[in-house]
Parts: sequence; structure tokens; C-alpha cells
Amino acid sequence: MTEYIAFDSEKALDYVKEIGGFFANDAVLTCYEFGDGNLNLVFRVADEKGHSIILKQALPYARCVGESWPLTLDRARIEAGVLQKHGAVCSDHTVKVLHQNRELAVTILEDLGYLRILRSELNDAKTFPLLGKDVATYLATTAFYFSDFYLEPAQKKALIVEFTNPELCAITEDLFFDDPYRVCERNSYPEELHAEVSKLQSNNALKLAVAKLKARFFSSPQTLLHGDVHTGSIFVDEKTTKLIDPEFGFFGPVGFDLGSFIGNLLLNYVAQNGRINQIPKRRDIHTYLLATIQTTLATFESSFLNLAKQHTQDQSLQSKGYAEHFVQGVLRDAIGYCGTELVRRTIGLAHVADIDGIEEQNKRLNAQTQALFLGQHLILNAHSVDTKEDFYQLLLSALL
Amino acid sequence: MTEYIAFDSEKALDYVKEIGGFFANDAVLTCYEFGDGNLNLVFRVADEKGHSIILKQALPYARCVGESWPLTLDRARIEAGVLQKHGAVCSDHTVKVLHQNRELAVTILEDLGYLRILRSELNDAKTFPLLGKDVATYLATTAFYFSDFYLEPAQKKALIVEFTNPELCAITEDLFFDDPYRVCERNSYPEELHAEVSKLQSNNALKLAVAKLKARFFSSPQTLLHGDVHTGSIFVDEKTTKLIDPEFGFFGPVGFDLGSFIGNLLLNYVAQNGRINQIPKRRDIHTYLLATIQTTLATFESSFLNLAKQHTQDQSLQSKGYAEHFVQGVLRDAIGYCGTELVRRTIGLAHVADIDGIEEQNKRLNAQTQALFLGQHLILNAHSVDTKEDFYQLLLSALL
Repeated sequence: MTEYIAFDSEKALDYVKEIGGFFANDAVLTCYEFGDGNLNLVFRVADEKGHSIILKQALPYARCVGESWPLTLDRARIEAGVLQKHGAVCSDHTVKVLHQNRELAVTILEDLGYLRILRSELNDAKTFPLLGKDVATYLATTAFYFSDFYLEPAQKKALIVEFTNPELCAITEDLFFDDPYRVCERNSYPEELHAEVSKLQSNNALKLAVAKLKARFFSSPQTLLHGDVHTGSIFVDEKTTKLIDPEFGFFGPVGFDLGSFIGNLLLNYVAQNGRINQIPKRRDIHTYLLATIQTTLATFESSFLNLAKQHTQDQSLQSKGYAEHFVQGVLRDAIGYCGTELVRRTIGLAHVADIDGIEEQNKRLNAQTQALFLGQHLILNAHSVDTKEDFYQLLLSALL
Repeated sequence: MTEYIAFDSEKALDYVKEIGGFFANDAVLTCYEFGDGNLNLVFRVADEKGHSIILKQALPYARCVGESWPLTLDRARIEAGVLQKHGAVCSDHTVKVLHQNRELAVTILEDLGYLRILRSELNDAKTFPLLGKDVATYLATTAFYFSDFYLEPAQKKALIVEFTNPELCAITEDLFFDDPYRVCERNSYPEELHAEVSKLQSNNALKLAVAKLKARFFSSPQTLLHGDVHTGSIFVDEKTTKLIDPEFGFFGPVGFDLGSFIGNLLLNYVAQNGRINQIPKRRDIHTYLLATIQTTLATFESSFLNLAKQHTQDQSLQSKGYAEHFVQGVLRDAIGYCGTELVRRTIGLAHVADIDGIEEQNKRLNAQTQALFLGQHLILNAHSVDTKEDFYQLLLSALL
């Protein structure tokens, strides 16, 4: 079993048995496929006692589009590799890799089935007190330990080579930074937004700001990113927060992950206007989301600065004020990337259930309009932000 | 002959004969070693008619230090690779590679013996009217064609991998950005500079600015750099300018090469005060050097912007104003790197003959003091520069 073949439930089960070590020898195992993701097969293998593992297999094409969109199997190697690297420095918030097979593009993972996917929970107006702190801790910790602050220069260069991920990066390069800002058949939005989209697509200041963000996505290998931190990549309960699915991982700008996360919280924020009719309940989730963003920014900043203060290995980067300067750049980047996430999830190829799931067309359109406005506002004003308080005020000025 | 062995003249000649094709079959060939560089063996092989080629071989250690400083042979691959890539887009100003052997770390090059090494010529107060224009054309052209403006993203990522050059980059990382700014036994300067150096090493603002430059050297793979553009890497005559020796090549910030070049012109500028007693003659070379810097900046800017306007492939980076923004960042970087070159050539490990060759100790010390002052001034004020005119005025304010 070393040549690639796409699994069905039976083959997945056979594979797990063949590898062995996950279950008791006499266990009665069941296996079923339940992946609803865009790109992969996902199986759950369980014994009769309820103990279970996840087997994930990459397909040689994008599942959501079909075989017409071929996609490298190498992404399974990248995904497992990022999880192992991130898990080594932040095991609390990284799903655990139990086994990897590069030829078959198979990864076996701990089963997080006891947790829930954050996006669905937020859409049900559920809140999680630790979310901001946990995600920010994950982002700051993984950002620091794979940066120039900490890694030996030669070690970092070798990791940049190992995590070179051209095909998956190309998807982001196209979908985040190109498609929404031009007439493109991959874009998807209702007719009613046409005038707004035309205005956006002829806004030169906006396109210039987006070009700067794209250039830093291309050429700013600050750290090993997750690469796809949206609320569908986060499993949660009251006490636990786990990141999954870093197949878009590569060495890029720290602000990209941070901005993507906050962007998804804001997508949920604007969606709640169309989801919840009762004003107090809506206010509660809005308050929660804003508080979570504040906590995220504060925790990210303090965690990163603490790590930099205590563990920076590079002599020059220990210079007084450098870590603060770095974090300021991350914040600015994050605002911009947050803005591009809002724009591309509203008018680009891949939308979010938060907004698309709003039943009333009119309310859906309002949410889309607000997301589009907010996204542009953030992209255009990122340069004026010096502190996390500025970031938050910029948000408020556009939301209220 | 595939296992590495260091050549002597006889072996070099045998190798050239074995490869064949460089000379007539009945040619009477001679070979001698004449390398005076820091890291390699360099042989000239010539026939009786005066036709000749250069055979360059990397040694597994730094020649200038000895076998105690081991150094990867892979630099020969990098050097030949950069020359081939740069030669493909700017053949006028790149020495031509005729043959390459990775195992032996051997590169055969066209013989530029009809030209002179720029550093020695400048030290003799010789001037070259095309120098600024030619070097700037080389820097702008090579910078553009290996940047995100032009390359397919996947192609650029593959080249970044190909030109990953950890050992040689580490030398720059240490010698440019670390050693001069701390007490370090590799530093070298006269006792009389001790107080100045102590002041420099306790200047937090300076060290912060240098940290930012080091971080961009680490993590700003804008283009395939030469990596070591000093006046000893440039061959010239009245009509010709050729760059050699890019063994420090890697994907880094465009401003590094530009700043290194201008830094070397400025090192010569301050050295001339101690080299030339006749004031009009000294004024002439000073005028020439400043004019060359102005031409370099103007030609770099116009060439890069022209290339960007006509040949940018990336859709987003075609945005109005982006190329100008990029060039502005390059200028700021260049000032900073220029400053670090002045500092490290004055108090670090590797000095320049321009200054070290000043006979009178007092005059030599004056030149060193001026270089050290100028370097710090540029590093500290780079952030205030928006245009090439600002750059030039900043220079003048510190020189006059």
C-alpha cells in the first residue's frame, strides 16, 4: 500500500488495522466518511467502546470543485508537518498527529469529535469565554517560535524550503488578492451588489493597498503560518480550543493568520444582524465578539512580547524596541488581511455560512453590504493604526 | 574527476583540456593561479595567441582565514547559478559562465582581464563615466526580473529554494549586522577609535535601526540578489562594466545590493581625503563620486519603474502607484544598508583598501572617523527619506 489510491471506508479501515497500535487487537471497529470540507476525505474509525481516531486523506483535486481542479497531494505533507511543528510549541491548541503517510497523502489525527466547530456554534449564538485568549496564544506562540527571533537562521531557511507550498499559496493569492478586485467569473455575489462591487473594483487607493498586502503575502516569510485560520478550522468547547487543517501553511506574514481570524469574527458580527431578531440577544453576541477581538489583540501582543523578551535568540533582534516595532507591523498587516478576508468572503468564490445562511434575502444583502464596507474601510485605513487600541477604534468607527 | 580535489595550476590545465572546446586542439596552453580573493582559487588558462579563460574553484574553507573556517563548496553552484540567471536578463553587465562542475566546485568564466577592478581604479583616482548608469541598470534589471512583479509565483518560490544560501548569508548576518554593534574579537579598528566605537555600541536607536535592517535581510525575499556588490566585484573600463563574484547571492531585499554599492563609493569618497593632497584633484574625484551616486539613484529608479510599467505580470502589483511605493521602500532600505556597509568596513572584520591603504596614520584615522559618522547618520535617518533627492541631500548634509 504505497502507491496512491483514494480510500473508501473499507480501505480506510483496512489501512488503520494494517498500521495497528490505535486500538486493542480484538476491538470491533467501524469506519465512516463524514468530510464536508472543500478538499479532502475524512473518515472516523471507532471501536465499540467509543474510542476513535480520524483518518484524513487528500484527494488529487479540490473536492468542492471536482476533478477539473487538480490539487497537489503534497498538501497532506504540509498539513501534517505544520501540525507537528505547531504542536511541538503549542500542544494545547493544535490537533495531534498520530501517523502520517506521504505516498497515500494520509494523516491520522486525534478525534476532536467531542468538540464543536466554532463557525456553527457562533451561528447558533453560542459563546466561548476562552476563545480569544486561546487563539491568540496559539498565534503568538507559533509565530514566535518559527520566526527570526527564535530560530537559527540556517534552520529557518531549511524550514522555509520544507514548507514551500506553491499550489495552495496560489489559491490564496488568487482568491484573496486578485479575483475580488477585478471582473472575474469565479466571483460570486447577488446582482444587487453589482454597483458596490463596480465601485470597489475601480477604487485605485484600495487596489494599491491590496497590492501591498499581496506583496507581503508573497515575500515576507516571518513565520510558519497556519494559512487558513477561519472559524471553520477551530474546534471548541467551554474549556478547549484546537486548530485544525493547516494545509495552506507556509512561511508568511504573521498578520495574515491574525487578520483572518478577526475577519471571521467580524463576518459573524455582521451576519448576526440578519440572524437574530431579538435586540438584547443580538447585542450579547455582538458584545461577545468585540470583547473576543479585544482579548485576541491584547493576548497576542502580550504573549508575543513576553516570548520575545525571554526567548529571543538573535542578538540584533534583542535590540530595545524591536519586538514592539515588529508587533506594530503585525497589527497593521492584520487589519489589512482582515479587510481582504471580509471582502473575499462576500464577493469572491468562497463564502461563509454565517452570511449565506441568513434566510431573508434583504437581511442577507444588508450583511453583505456591511461586510463589504467594513472590509474596504479596514484595508484603506490600516496604515493609520499604531496600537491595538487604534485597531479597535477603527473597527468600532465602522461598525457602529 | 568527479570527487572534489583542490586544483593546482597543472590540474586546472588538465581539467580545461579534458573538458575541451575552449581552445584549438593544437593550442599551446599555459595556466597560473592569481586569485587574491578571500575565498577561492582563480586560474587563468591562455593559449599562445593570448586567448584566455578563467577557471575558478571554491575551497572548502575561507581562503583568507584558512582551513579553520570551513565554508560550503555549494557556493560555487550558487555563484554560477546567479551569474546565469542575471546574465539571462542583463548580459551586458554580467560575467559570462562557460562551464560549471558542481562536484569540483569549478566554474569556467570568460576572462575579463582586459578590464580593471573598480576599487583599484578609484583608489588611483580614475573615473568611469558609465559606472553609475551601468551598475544601476544591472541592479534594476536583475531586481525586476526575479521579483514578484515579473516571476510566476510558483517559479519564484522554486528559485528561492534553489538559491537558499545559509552559510554565506550567515557571514553577512554576522559581519554586517551583529559584530560591529557589540564587543567582538572579530572586529578590527585602531585604539584611537575606541571611544567612538563604544558610543556606537551603546546607541540603542542605532541598534534598533540595524535590527530592522537585519530582519529585512532575513525575511524579505524580494529578488535574487548579487549579495556582495562592492567595488572589488566590479570590472570596468571606459565602455564596459561587469559584475563578478555573486557567491553571496540569495533572495533578499533589493536595497541591499544598491546600498552596498553606494556604500563602497562613499568609502572611497572619505578615503580620498587621505589619498589626494591636491585640492582640485580631490574635488574632481569627489564630484565624480557624488555624480555617480546621483546617476545610480536616478537610473535605478527610472529603469525599475519602466520595467514595472511595461512588464509586470502580477495583476495586483500592476496597481497604480505600487511600483513607486516599492521603489521608495528600496531607497530607504538602500540608505540603511549603505550605512551598515560603511560601519562594518571601518570597524568590523573586513576592511577596504581605499581606507586601509591611506599611508598617513592620522589621515587614515580621519577617514575612518568620517566613515563611521556617515554610516551611523545614514542608518539613523533612513526612515525620513521619501525620494532619491532626499537620499542625496541626506548624504550631502553629512559629507559637507
